[in-house]
Amino acid sequence: MGSAENAALTLSARQASDFELLANGGFAPLRGFQGSEDWRSVCENMRLTSGEIWPIPITLATDFECSVGDVIDLKAPNGKQLGRLKVEEIFEKDVDFEAEKVYRTTDNEHPGVAAMRAEGSRCLAGPIEVDALPDHDEAFMRRYKTPAETRAEFEKRGWKRIVAFQTRNPIHRAHEYLTKAALEICDGLFIHPLIGETKKGDIPAEVRMRCYEVLMEKYYHPDHVMLGVNPGKMHYAGPREAVLHAIIRRNYGCTHFIVGRDHAGVGDYYGTYDAQRIFDDIDLNELGITPLFFEHTFWCNECQGMGSNKTCPHPQESRLFLSGTKVREMLSAGETPPPEFTREEVAQILIDAYKEGLD
Amino acid sequence: MGSAENAALTLSARQASDFELLANGGFAPLRGFQGSEDWRSVCENMRLTSGEIWPIPITLATDFECSVGDVIDLKAPNGKQLGRLKVEEIFEKDVDFEAEKVYRTTDNEHPGVAAMRAEGSRCLAGPIEVDALPDHDEAFMRRYKTPAETRAEFEKRGWKRIVAFQTRNPIHRAHEYLTKAALEICDGLFIHPLIGETKKGDIPAEVRMRCYEVLMEKYYHPDHVMLGVNPGKMHYAGPREAVLHAIIRRNYGCTHFIVGRDHAGVGDYYGTYDAQRIFDDIDLNELGITPLFFEHTFWCNECQGMGSNKTCPHPQESRLFLSGTKVREMLSAGETPPPEFTREEVAQILIDAYKEGLD
Repeated sequence: MGSAENAALTLSARQASDFELLANGGFAPLRGFQGSEDWRSVCENMRLTSGEIWPIPITLATDFECSVGDVIDLKAPNGKQLGRLKVEEIFEKDVDFEAEKVYRTTDNEHPGVAAMRAEGSRCLAGPIEVDALPDHDEAFMRRYKTPAETRAEFEKRGWKRIVAFQTRNPIHRAHEYLTKAALEICDGLFIHPLIGETKKGDIPAEVRMRCYEVLMEKYYHPDHVMLGVNPGKMHYAGPREAVLHAIIRRNYGCTHFIVGRDHAGVGDYYGTYDAQRIFDDIDLNELGITPLFFEHTFWCNECQGMGSNKTCPHPQESRLFLSGTKVREMLSAGETPPPEFTREEVAQILIDAYKEGLD
Repeated sequence: MGSAENAALTLSARQASDFELLANGGFAPLRGFQGSEDWRSVCENMRLTSGEIWPIPITLATDFECSVGDVIDLKAPNGKQLGRLKVEEIFEKDVDFEAEKVYRTTDNEHPGVAAMRAEGSRCLAGPIEVDALPDHDEAFMRRYKTPAETRAEFEKRGWKRIVAFQTRNPIHRAHEYLTKAALEICDGLFIHPLIGETKKGDIPAEVRMRCYEVLMEKYYHPDHVMLGVNPGKMHYAGPREAVLHAIIRRNYGCTHFIVGRDHAGVGDYYGTYDAQRIFDDIDLNELGITPLFFEHTFWCNECQGMGSNKTCPHPQESRLFLSGTKVREMLSAGETPPPEFTREEVAQILIDAYKEGLD
């Protein structure tokens, strides 16, 4: 509960995302917002000062007035009391340094860098106490499980090898294929869409959830596939974020993690395979989860099936290719892309969303 | 070269298979036919006396007259001089004990047990010296590479993650699918059919090679798939043989190995997943290769793609199922099974083979 004597800081949606993953165990071993030493260590070495791999600083940047030693209440954007921060340090972080080390660019056109700059450089650090988790819409809450609850469910289902799929897009045939290819060598698939803040132009999470739900109903096997929600926000930090995404899913109890081309990338800031190559220098036993690397996949008329540049030997003209722009055009015009590109049920949800004003 | 003073033992085709894998490095760390202590240790503990995992005894059972200390010439069934055996031990093995421990049955209807019984219990043991490898037909030789040559080729291609597929059958869509699903998470696929002795009723290796070759030409990507040949024979020892198959492919330089349902099984001697479960008790770092476990796969009309019980949620009637008997009936009647079951080019090769007298 909020305390009469504590000052109260209302978190932004992005900050509440971080609070939630700190609070529910998704950011283990972190137990609070990072101080200057961890911040620097993470930026420079991709490790906490305690030695564990950690790729992106989790800091609380705010102008909120307080002093070291204060305990401040933390509230969700909707005013809900979430818990408290014991302020152990107040420090200025070098935003350009973080941008360069973590995002590999200081360009303000990069949405992650821009978001970080907008938050500012003054950070409060310290452990949190948790009263409650932020609220989410019913569409998310019916799939919401904490990492501990998720692990318990995997255990109950007898799954030993569990592959997680991070997504911030609707799932078309290409991604359905790669989740299923990964599932073939595992016991279970954990579809774990990110529902925190994404950039303008990304399809909203509530629309995406409708797409995932219809796939769960019609095209995924309920005994082998679980749909969850990841309250995290997007950084668009490419390789570093792929590692963060993997760590979060390790904490949710997964053993394998799908890393596609341009994972968590944006624009041309990262090479196509940078988010796969970063794992070459990481001891996977230490990381605690095994990445599975995938190529771009597509339907091929000669294969009469899905494939990639590795598995399909046929020329481009045999392959179904639709650009993102083309797909958006079709859907917003009420046209259904071919079933080899997307399931009809998914197309219909997106067509309806465009009709309702999706940009 | 054969020596005038050495007595010469002409190996059976099955014995020549073992010689070849001992000689070319496929059976590393073995360097000869096993003696009584290794034989017992392998049967009882699935390990060599030196500690390494080894699942099936590699012994040379023969009535050939000789004494400990002799060096005897070894000849291929066609008379080719292969090398020499330095006889270090002559011992009687307990065939029933081996059958029970390795094959989990002493039933003479089991083709592996029957073959072992036919070979007898008196074994010559000792290291081999190699003059030459057995001859193979041109269809095999054009794909023949030793383990060292195969590893060098993987290196040259820059493949780090290489999945091997053992097969003693033509590749239909189901197996094409699982090889491709495995390839999606690897850099390369090594199709490594067994060309040594198989049981009556299995499709001959030379016919199968024609099937593999047409798939290499039309449906596999030459930059990501290699076709080799494994001179090994079949034991039909199910779980123990799955481990042997994995070790052989580790020696050929592969990092992953596909284990399907009933791998290397025959009849009802093994449970459907026994050949997968055996790996639960094996330290994979020690083994040096990671098994990838697959279910039975099929075409599904609702998925409009290949899948398994894990990835397809649809009822049986949506799935294309043809029994082995039904497929043989169709092919021997000159009928092409549907393209969702087998590639037309493969069906044609098999139809032709049946016309030419395949049983």
